[in-house]
Amino acid sequence: MRSPSCILLALTVAVLVLRLPAPAIAGRPLKPAPADAAATARWLAAQNTWGVLSTISSDLNGAPFGNVVSYSDGVPGESHGIPYFYLTTLDPTARDALADERTSFTLSEFPLGTCGKKDPENPSCAKLTLTGKMKVVDFQSPEADLAKTALFSKHPEMKGWPKNHNFEIFKLEIEHIFLIDWFGGPKPISPSEYLEYGRHQGSLLSF
Amino acid sequence: MRSPSCILLALTVAVLVLRLPAPAIAGRPLKPAPADAAATARWLAAQNTWGVLSTISSDLNGAPFGNVVSYSDGVPGESHGIPYFYLTTLDPTARDALADERTSFTLSEFPLGTCGKKDPENPSCAKLTLTGKMKVVDFQSPEADLAKTALFSKHPEMKGWPKNHNFEIFKLEIEHIFLIDWFGGPKPISPSEYLEYGRHQGSLLSF
Repeated sequence: MRSPSCILLALTVAVLVLRLPAPAIAGRPLKPAPADAAATARWLAAQNTWGVLSTISSDLNGAPFGNVVSYSDGVPGESHGIPYFYLTTLDPTARDALADERTSFTLSEFPLGTCGKKDPENPSCAKLTLTGKMKVVDFQSPEADLAKTALFSKHPEMKGWPKNHNFEIFKLEIEHIFLIDWFGGPKPISPSEYLEYGRHQGSLLSF
Repeated sequence: MRSPSCILLALTVAVLVLRLPAPAIAGRPLKPAPADAAATARWLAAQNTWGVLSTISSDLNGAPFGNVVSYSDGVPGESHGIPYFYLTTLDPTARDALADERTSFTLSEFPLGTCGKKDPENPSCAKLTLTGKMKVVDFQSPEADLAKTALFSKHPEMKGWPKNHNFEIFKLEIEHIFLIDWFGGPKPISPSEYLEYGRHQGSLLSF
């Protein structure tokens, strides 16, 4: 039989391990300060891997239609802010976007695990909605190569998705940004502030 | 100094603890079989606590606009399938819904932790979009009492939200259901199949 002190050590280890932050949080770059709106928006876009694309539904007479999609705005640690998607017209979202390119893309901080005990609707648990126009990226273009690298690095499964489903690369051309990351209403950020964030920060930008 | 066997025990405990399912999954009712579409849709609505509401944006000239919101379709273990929301017109989503009640509400299985290593866009990682009309629930009605109990049980923080923000209770009257829970396209479920699911199953329905 083990000694009581040995069992105590084992229990202590168990308690310490259970108190560790979730692995998803452990390796994540720190959330920027709420006052740094462009940084927070870019952090949300870089850290999430999925969100909800909202389109004007052709099937439902012009009603708004939200759908869960995966995306990537760059390989891990080198994000550019533009969300790229890998969609098939077998799914209504791609068909909708081809018929009416007005689209919004919505992300939450909540699934990242960094909101702690805050409610998902609490303004300090950040939310980002990028609204603009969905565009198909020419599969033979250099941009498509970058997009594929970005998508497949975060979604390795995509590489093996059925060829006959004719997946295409789409991107959102951002025209309007809605960010809530604190009390007091949405933060005004222009698309250029968002897209240019970090360009002059060099190696300081690690997401 | 501890004996090597004692340290080995402590390490074994650490490894075993790390392999435990996440607490969020441990207490969750099992996901229904993919063939049971109505059950899967109701499970997604009961297990999630937040999703994305998509409206027709007044501020953005009729573009679709998705926003992160908290909701509840019943107290834990007694869900009814109708999502109730606690929204303020300080936020564009409530204003949009009052101007044009066409709304969709989108949920993903991914944040529940039950998709394992599957990609969030993989069809077997379930997605649900409820589309219909948003209605304000009269704050003095018996339905509002039920909705408040449902909301505050899953979102205790809401009780203390500022009175002068004039939060109101909204509900989605569901007209169309889009569920992907397996390969082969969306599952046809009618709103009545969805809402009546579990009514005759008595104590078998525990979500």
